[in-house]
Amino acid sequence: MTSWKENAREVVPYTPGEQPKTKVIKLNTNENPYPPSPLVGKAISNIQLDSLRKYPDPGCSILISALAKYHGFNEENVFVGVGSDDVLAMSFLTFFNSKKPIFFPDITYSFYDVWADLFRIPYETKALDKDFKIVASDYSGECGGIVIPNPNAPTGVAEPVEFFENIVAAHPECVVIIDEAYVDFGSKSCVDLVRKYDNVLVVRTFSKSRSMAGNRIGYAIGSKELIKYLSDCKFSFNSYTMDTITLAVGVASIEDNAYFKEKVDAVIKTREWTKGELTKLGFTFPDSMSNFIFAKHESVKATYIFEELKKRGIYVRYFSKPERISDYLRISIGTDDEMQEFINELSNIIKGV
Amino acid sequence: MTSWKENAREVVPYTPGEQPKTKVIKLNTNENPYPPSPLVGKAISNIQLDSLRKYPDPGCSILISALAKYHGFNEENVFVGVGSDDVLAMSFLTFFNSKKPIFFPDITYSFYDVWADLFRIPYETKALDKDFKIVASDYSGECGGIVIPNPNAPTGVAEPVEFFENIVAAHPECVVIIDEAYVDFGSKSCVDLVRKYDNVLVVRTFSKSRSMAGNRIGYAIGSKELIKYLSDCKFSFNSYTMDTITLAVGVASIEDNAYFKEKVDAVIKTREWTKGELTKLGFTFPDSMSNFIFAKHESVKATYIFEELKKRGIYVRYFSKPERISDYLRISIGTDDEMQEFINELSNIIKGV
Repeated sequence: MTSWKENAREVVPYTPGEQPKTKVIKLNTNENPYPPSPLVGKAISNIQLDSLRKYPDPGCSILISALAKYHGFNEENVFVGVGSDDVLAMSFLTFFNSKKPIFFPDITYSFYDVWADLFRIPYETKALDKDFKIVASDYSGECGGIVIPNPNAPTGVAEPVEFFENIVAAHPECVVIIDEAYVDFGSKSCVDLVRKYDNVLVVRTFSKSRSMAGNRIGYAIGSKELIKYLSDCKFSFNSYTMDTITLAVGVASIEDNAYFKEKVDAVIKTREWTKGELTKLGFTFPDSMSNFIFAKHESVKATYIFEELKKRGIYVRYFSKPERISDYLRISIGTDDEMQEFINELSNIIKGV
Repeated sequence: MTSWKENAREVVPYTPGEQPKTKVIKLNTNENPYPPSPLVGKAISNIQLDSLRKYPDPGCSILISALAKYHGFNEENVFVGVGSDDVLAMSFLTFFNSKKPIFFPDITYSFYDVWADLFRIPYETKALDKDFKIVASDYSGECGGIVIPNPNAPTGVAEPVEFFENIVAAHPECVVIIDEAYVDFGSKSCVDLVRKYDNVLVVRTFSKSRSMAGNRIGYAIGSKELIKYLSDCKFSFNSYTMDTITLAVGVASIEDNAYFKEKVDAVIKTREWTKGELTKLGFTFPDSMSNFIFAKHESVKATYIFEELKKRGIYVRYFSKPERISDYLRISIGTDDEMQEFINELSNIIKGV
């Protein structure tokens, strides 16, 4: 007699960054140090309890309409999901069904190979160069799809729009996904490529620049046809992904553009200050256009710094693999006070070695 | 040159019931007519805006712990998702990977064949008998998995626990999913089978009996090993499915058991009254143990009644396929006032023919 286990999908899941439950300085999951817009709070207060007994609008029209307006597209160009992970997972399931491998960088968001494994999608990773830059020529061969974050994670390195346009134009046979989770922190969006190419999907999230990781909102902008394929798969998986409260708070965030810009600018300013301090302490890093810095010390091992910071209640992110990045730490940008304390403690750790 | 469409997954998605945007009596999506517990409202008011900038607990521990306690299981026996559709979709993806077909009834929740198509899972439907009862012997052959709702939808017919125990015990080679979306409305749960069998998964939702369709909460109870497989796949798809507010309101609902029982009893009482009125008007129906009644009139066509009700602002659900049920209407149970108005209008329609 066989066991049900022989017919079960066995996978090694993605491991999210630790969510410590005690009071700490949390610079390990690229969260925004500022709260969401006060309009988000108001939207929550305005929720009518009785409205929750009903299913939400499966078409998510209020949020899709707000996003379409914000980006200057039609509603049929917008797809929303439960965080950008949901949007990306659904996109892998929908678009990456070729027998040819999909391509993505060797050092990148660590979920791409997890999704490929989950859906049994063949893939090839392409090595970043010594400066952690993506090598355009690596992406020229025929393939089953391409996914690249811009700026890349955990390096923070951004490429210009023309770089992506060349890739998109060269690959009408597959969908090219540009994962713009961090684009609001100072790099240029590829969203306008959607007006010209039907095979490019730009994915965004409310988790970083909109300070709403706790709400789970992601979205994609693509051609009408691409969005139709994606929506059909999504409606075949779960018709009602976005709950009533989430739809309301998503719209509220989009409506407060002044607050959004103010807080993004604050993060950028703190990041630039932090870069200067890290350099003084003997760190090197690729120039980050995101809300984190991927830094390596000239002499002190990353694992040592990581553990010492943790003892002091400061969490940063460490990736042991691949070997090339095993001496780097990914440091999310906190408030000015948090980063001052982080730099103080880091300085003590370095001087104490 | 090939097109990206050749490598895209093309599917025919599930069509959810209409969500009319004007004031109507909505008896078409099995929503609860009563609001969620006042504790849910309190939990929403207590949300700290600043907490939303952080990722939610990926382990969903407060909600899983509340559910484990409620059902008398350990936390490792509980899985939560974005509505029971999310839980079921993830379960199909995780457990139904055999080349043998999975089995489910021919008349049942219309999402099962949609998921099977999406994930390319072979399936065989088994015909209900003339009284819309499930025929146990149909489920005896070796198969890739089994999924049955209890009570079944859209019939409302429930089977006893022994019926399911026989199926579960006969199929150690596959996972048997019992979809208990409507079980709180008067039938017996199979949840205790989990204490005895490692291949049974019981799936539940907050959308019906807990009046929280707008919040998107579903869950599953299963053996530790089954839940581990399911969680691993879930964490490979999306680590953060349950948002901070949803986790809090889920716990609040579980904590208010008195309110829950009161409202479930009210729905049952209204359902029994409605059964009597429908009989007087010449309808027949299988005896429903859910929050809807699946009814057929002795002489007036379902499509006619459906359209006439709609003109009067009353929405019920009509399924044109399969042929056997094309003269039935699925009527969700509303408040006493709503059902009185529904019966009045229905009476006018029948008499006017």
